[in-house]
Amino acid sequence: MTQGLGDNPVLVEVTRGEKIESFHRGAIAVADVQGRIVIALGNVRRPIFPRSAIKALQAIPLIESGAADALGLTDGELAVVCGSHSGERVHLDAVRSILAKAGLDENDLACGAHWPLSERATRELERAGARPRAIHNNCSGKHAGMLATAVHLGIEPRGYERPEHPVQAEITRVVSDICAIRLEPSDMGIDGCSVPTWAMPLGSLAQGVARYASGKGLSPVRAQAAQRLMDACLAAPVMVAGEGRFDTVVMRKLAPSVLVKGGAEGVHCAAMPEADIGVVVKIDDGSKRAVEMVMMALLASLVLGGDLRLGDRLEAELRNWRGLEVGRLRASSTLKHELETLAARHDFVPDSAAR
Amino acid sequence: MTQGLGDNPVLVEVTRGEKIESFHRGAIAVADVQGRIVIALGNVRRPIFPRSAIKALQAIPLIESGAADALGLTDGELAVVCGSHSGERVHLDAVRSILAKAGLDENDLACGAHWPLSERATRELERAGARPRAIHNNCSGKHAGMLATAVHLGIEPRGYERPEHPVQAEITRVVSDICAIRLEPSDMGIDGCSVPTWAMPLGSLAQGVARYASGKGLSPVRAQAAQRLMDACLAAPVMVAGEGRFDTVVMRKLAPSVLVKGGAEGVHCAAMPEADIGVVVKIDDGSKRAVEMVMMALLASLVLGGDLRLGDRLEAELRNWRGLEVGRLRASSTLKHELETLAARHDFVPDSAAR
Repeated sequence: MTQGLGDNPVLVEVTRGEKIESFHRGAIAVADVQGRIVIALGNVRRPIFPRSAIKALQAIPLIESGAADALGLTDGELAVVCGSHSGERVHLDAVRSILAKAGLDENDLACGAHWPLSERATRELERAGARPRAIHNNCSGKHAGMLATAVHLGIEPRGYERPEHPVQAEITRVVSDICAIRLEPSDMGIDGCSVPTWAMPLGSLAQGVARYASGKGLSPVRAQAAQRLMDACLAAPVMVAGEGRFDTVVMRKLAPSVLVKGGAEGVHCAAMPEADIGVVVKIDDGSKRAVEMVMMALLASLVLGGDLRLGDRLEAELRNWRGLEVGRLRASSTLKHELETLAARHDFVPDSAAR
Repeated sequence: MTQGLGDNPVLVEVTRGEKIESFHRGAIAVADVQGRIVIALGNVRRPIFPRSAIKALQAIPLIESGAADALGLTDGELAVVCGSHSGERVHLDAVRSILAKAGLDENDLACGAHWPLSERATRELERAGARPRAIHNNCSGKHAGMLATAVHLGIEPRGYERPEHPVQAEITRVVSDICAIRLEPSDMGIDGCSVPTWAMPLGSLAQGVARYASGKGLSPVRAQAAQRLMDACLAAPVMVAGEGRFDTVVMRKLAPSVLVKGGAEGVHCAAMPEADIGVVVKIDDGSKRAVEMVMMALLASLVLGGDLRLGDRLEAELRNWRGLEVGRLRASSTLKHELETLAARHDFVPDSAAR
């Protein structure tokens, strides 16, 4: 086998009839209040790219620079900066508002264009005979935040997406600080929206998310900025993703217990500001269906406090084009065992679980 | 790990910057003229669902029953029966023509509806304010063939999609015969389009595809039916998939050397009627990007006869929304090694390779 990739366990199975048709391997890291990794399933030392799952970390300079205050950004606007939006009207309005407050417009966005993640928004564009623009890109909120930071600091905003631009350099410092990791040039990749994304071990990312959630190990100013961004996302979950999408649905159900955010290639992070816990999942093959199943199972266990009434969360029906049930998407026995072990660890059950 | 799934090798790597971001495991079986498995990479005994990759096998009763002759089906119509079409006008016309020849219409299709696989066709439907219907389902050609078979045999066509219907029972016998495998009720799954799909070991499927390609081990009538269907697909590759899609592009380049057909959940089959070889790939996680990369690498090696000028086929650029290259999709070292071994086996290089 290809060296260095390790043998991560099967986390999710996809069945058809009585057989397992496909399956997904991956790794999970959960870090606690002290930043200790308390669950390490699979290879948590392998570097992964966090991609969009840490937009809330990348948004820190927007707060710390004073730009958010100076421009009077609302919770919804901060949430769309931390989000991967669906391109619905509510999202576009928020992004346009941030840009306008910074004296810019959508032509300044360097994220590239793609059809809105929302099928409805795509169909509407199509009916209007229009093509998608950069503002429809799910990352346009993040980009608007970066632009606003540059403008507020009096830095030339053009080229804001490049690694050497002061805004990106500051974001890199912030991510490096929160995750307590030294980032080398060879750790850098370019994200789908053209800004840098930094590879780091899954375990380091989980510890960073725990620190972000708890504020512990961060400067008071940074801890406050993180809290403000988490509060904004939890107050406006629809801005972080969109109607019907995983992160929005989960946060509506579980707020204020968890800020959950997915990224491309099967990465998902959860910051639990009440319990001071960080959770990171990476599916080896980049699967979205698998990472959402695993995150749902983990959150059910962590937020519901080890209560194993998880049946309906650990298995989902797969239906075909006529609506017939043809199989299931389900947690593997390895993952179920891990959740049972977690449930038995009363020392680790977060306080919020008692509610 | 979950028992019985085995540890298949990494076949495809997805890089970003200098790191491997995601990777895909899977298994490969190549069977030769005699139906021997000459390449078995990974667990070729694990049962897999062939899904749409064996529509050309499922179409045999349409020929053997005499329905295709009686109704005067054209090459293009036979190819769409063997295909997973894009829902372009040329496909819909062919499906409607088959149905009309059988005295039926699109309301008789039981495959369920989905938006056309072709983005262009989807946009056209949308602009017309229409919703997708069963005829847009990529399987509507296969279903039209099943309906035509029933009508020609004087069997009630309603319920043709059910396992107990005589047409499905005959298809099951044909698949079982070609793959020389006894199919048990527990091997049955229901496909996305509601007809049965039968799980069998990857190796058995490869041997079945080799027999289908060569006619060896089949009755003369069955061998002739297989040849006719292969000829139809190779004469009209656009009907098997659609403009820009893998199977169409590959067959246009490599016809008449290979009939290649993908299925859902990362399955891909190639029948090589000149070389009498069968190739089957299954990616554990069901990934399309990975199975197409592996199949392309295998075909380049098999059809080009071990000539290792494969550089451009073993690696593809991944570009982001702005067109920047951010990473690569590439054959793993394990797969490359297997291809080199294959190239060195001159006893196995098919005759067609010399061309």
